[in-house]
Amino acid sequence: MIRVDLNSDLGESFGAYTIGMDEEILAYVSSANVACGMHAGDPVVMEKTVAMAAQSGVRIGAHPGFPDLMGFGRRNLSVSPAEAKAYVKYQVGALLAFTRGQGVAMQHVKPHGALYNMAAVDQALADAICEGIREVDPSLILLGLANSRMLDAARKAGLRAASEVFADRAYRDDGTLMPRSQPGAVIHDRELAITRTVRMVTEGVVETASGKLIPIQADSICVHGDNPSALTFVREIRSALERQGVEIRPLSD
Amino acid sequence: MIRVDLNSDLGESFGAYTIGMDEEILAYVSSANVACGMHAGDPVVMEKTVAMAAQSGVRIGAHPGFPDLMGFGRRNLSVSPAEAKAYVKYQVGALLAFTRGQGVAMQHVKPHGALYNMAAVDQALADAICEGIREVDPSLILLGLANSRMLDAARKAGLRAASEVFADRAYRDDGTLMPRSQPGAVIHDRELAITRTVRMVTEGVVETASGKLIPIQADSICVHGDNPSALTFVREIRSALERQGVEIRPLSD
Amino acid sequence: MIRVDLNSDLGESFGAYTIGMDEEILAYVSSANVACGMHAGDPVVMEKTVAMAAQSGVRIGAHPGFPDLMGFGRRNLSVSPAEAKAYVKYQVGALLAFTRGQGVAMQHVKPHGALYNMAAVDQALADAICEGIREVDPSLILLGLANSRMLDAARKAGLRAASEVFADRAYRDDGTLMPRSQPGAVIHDRELAITRTVRMVTEGVVETASGKLIPIQADSICVHGDNPSALTFVREIRSALERQGVEIRPLSD
Amino acid sequence: MIRVDLNSDLGESFGAYTIGMDEEILAYVSSANVACGMHAGDPVVMEKTVAMAAQSGVRIGAHPGFPDLMGFGRRNLSVSPAEAKAYVKYQVGALLAFTRGQGVAMQHVKPHGALYNMAAVDQALADAICEGIREVDPSLILLGLANSRMLDAARKAGLRAASEVFADRAYRDDGTLMPRSQPGAVIHDRELAITRTVRMVTEGVVETASGKLIPIQADSICVHGDNPSALTFVREIRSALERQGVEIRPLSD
Repeated sequence: MIRVDLNSDLGESFGAYTIGMDEEILAYVSSANVACGMHAGDPVVMEKTVAMAAQSGVRIGAHPGFPDLMGFGRRNLSVSPAEAKAYVKYQVGALLAFTRGQGVAMQHVKPHGALYNMAAVDQALADAICEGIREVDPSLILLGLANSRMLDAARKAGLRAASEVFADRAYRDDGTLMPRSQPGAVIHDRELAITRTVRMVTEGVVETASGKLIPIQADSICVHGDNPSALTFVREIRSALERQGVEIRPLSD
Repeated sequence: MIRVDLNSDLGESFGAYTIGMDEEILAYVSSANVACGMHAGDPVVMEKTVAMAAQSGVRIGAHPGFPDLMGFGRRNLSVSPAEAKAYVKYQVGALLAFTRGQGVAMQHVKPHGALYNMAAVDQALADAICEGIREVDPSLILLGLANSRMLDAARKAGLRAASEVFADRAYRDDGTLMPRSQPGAVIHDRELAITRTVRMVTEGVVETASGKLIPIQADSICVHGDNPSALTFVREIRSALERQGVEIRPLSD
Repeated sequence: MIRVDLNSDLGESFGAYTIGMDEEILAYVSSANVACGMHAGDPVVMEKTVAMAAQSGVRIGAHPGFPDLMGFGRRNLSVSPAEAKAYVKYQVGALLAFTRGQGVAMQHVKPHGALYNMAAVDQALADAICEGIREVDPSLILLGLANSRMLDAARKAGLRAASEVFADRAYRDDGTLMPRSQPGAVIHDRELAITRTVRMVTEGVVETASGKLIPIQADSICVHGDNPSALTFVREIRSALERQGVEIRPLSD
Repeated sequence: MIRVDLNSDLGESFGAYTIGMDEEILAYVSSANVACGMHAGDPVVMEKTVAMAAQSGVRIGAHPGFPDLMGFGRRNLSVSPAEAKAYVKYQVGALLAFTRGQGVAMQHVKPHGALYNMAAVDQALADAICEGIREVDPSLILLGLANSRMLDAARKAGLRAASEVFADRAYRDDGTLMPRSQPGAVIHDRELAITRTVRMVTEGVVETASGKLIPIQADSICVHGDNPSALTFVREIRSALERQGVEIRPLSD
């Protein structure tokens, strides 16, 4: 039977500030990436998010980002590999406190935002991040962009690697994402996005922006719960996959 | 044989800012309390500090504080017990990433500054902190102020508790510290401070400010490595203890 | 003609985090207290908020708070008077950059949250804050809790002082607010709240929790725009005042 | 008579953390760039630094940087021009509170670290920064890297521009600094550095790394007071200049 994981970013609220519909999205995903206090999230939010995810049976991963709350971790920051490694270890460890408190294992680590994007194309950064993860817990799965340096780095470090795809993004012929700055980078046609997603999962291919069919490994699909419309989209993707006989299962299963 | 632990606060540097003589003090202490990034310390500093301590054979503990870098965690902050619990768990977990990376166990947790002082007299806060520590790792030792609520809280939570004394501070008849705002709170006579320390360790008593002899449990002595003079004082305390046949050993031994 | 100011806290969003219905509330108030980046707000939010307020003809004041974004400035922090003074100056100056950029004058300063509450009862803290404001600009109006130390401090410092009242809070016989921890501290009956507010403004009296009538100076009424229901309440208060012939005018008029 | 300004970065301490020998360097420089709380400095430090500079008769400028205390503002951060503008305005305004408190005028603004370097080569960023400065106070002088985009931007914005040179750095044929990553970028020979500095000031030329003589405008020389050796170097530069009849005068004179 074909399986795929659905992952979403959770626990991004901070103090008095609320972002996301965490309770609602937990009904649809199999894995949660929990913010760890640097680009979003705070200890109280982390404690609550981990408890909610554990109670929902959703697997938990760390979502470490840059120490840039003001920019939500979305701005490139020229850290050294050693800094990136230490930042990731710190955040993974911090989340570990809360998964332990709930008596559940941490499943994976998915770098956030600019850290995710920079590490996708910078081998030294990617290697440092993966070494950091392995030093904290070698059983953690690295969840990274399909066809990126992160997946190579994870394998080099001896970590299991899971390849992430996006339902609503265009791909280039080399298997990388079309940058958001380019026209057509985001697919706004929901039907098309769903069809593409099902095909990535069931056939292992995606049609690139140039019309070429290329192979792609879809271990996990990234979905968002920012607003009611996003939630509906997640429900539709999930239904479409299940109708095709795909089982939604967490990465570690 | 009589044993005592010598502990010191380490890893308090931050980014380009350096505080403390960490390398030097490691030669004299048996336990290091490592700052965890909220009141002091950052991930890079934590990684380096844990590596240095591990290589020196000094046991490592977390030194969680308030999220108040500007005040170095020394200012009272009216957090709720739930907030304190989450902050402590977060910081203990973050440090755990680095002890794991070094392949060493974390030995203890000692709250820092205003959090330490507030929890010493606030049972609900003390209980929340100790429950948080137990949830992360029940084998951790709580290092808290002698005769304070923290030690009661640790025992209630099922944690081992270690009682900390200060070489250069005056005690009141109820076994608590004379507040720094009072005259005579700090003992500036080094010889007297050393004599008092040896007596606390070897006889289990201390002479209070009123001249009364009271029992005190001295599991660990807090020492500082802020400057060369402080380092000399630590060396002198250590020598005086060893001359009396006291063995300097970490808490967990 | 009787006049009163309606003030509201604005510009409390931060980075990707949004709080408040700033655009909507600007239609009803005469003065805006703009967060200055320590407990809430960031430079981009400040720039936008000041521009919106200036375009609406709403007068602008600084809303300085404690450096505690995680606690939204609502937690007591044991700062020294010198620290409070420097924090207030820093934040007032920071906002000044944006009012200058819009070519409008800053009207007032209203301390936020725990800083507001602590200074209401701590004369040294209140004095330090008011001296700080005067050093930046002696023409600024201090907006503080009716019958509090802040108003005395402002007069001592040579600042104009404006007395703030709350529509939905109970008062004690000494003119201070009933603490939120007490039953009956918040008045949930909207009609009653509006009647009380009109009376404070038009008659200069308020009925305390014990049923006594005491004098109260109502220069400005604090209102909130956190949600649609709060906005409706503001509109109702404004209408009720206007029906009684009260003119809504900013403090500086 | 030939004149030049000597400027140094001051007020970089933060909370319990001390950096720099601010009191000592004030005896040698004519202008101080004061950190404004984002990459370094805090309100208490700013208040003290501005008071010290004012009392020494040293002119005061703002030294705004990226919101990256952990990286001391030295790491590139991909902010938008609008973000850079708001950050600079915020910090210049914050410092203005303290110069006003001392009754002195602010003289200049010199961006710090990575913001300085990025704006030197990015016209949109440079323009945004200079527009921000002008909006706060059009009489402020922009102090920027010789031959950089910053100086063009300042002129475009209608600000006075001052051209900064470095005593110990190699220049390329196009008048820009040799990057630190290149061999020979830093001139360690003190005598040579002093000779070059005197020549830049008195003759308006510098010998580039390739041996070519190019014109350079030396309105201000950047010097450091990080340690006793750096202080000695500043004293030597100052003496050498004075021996050649150069007068050390602040930018605004």
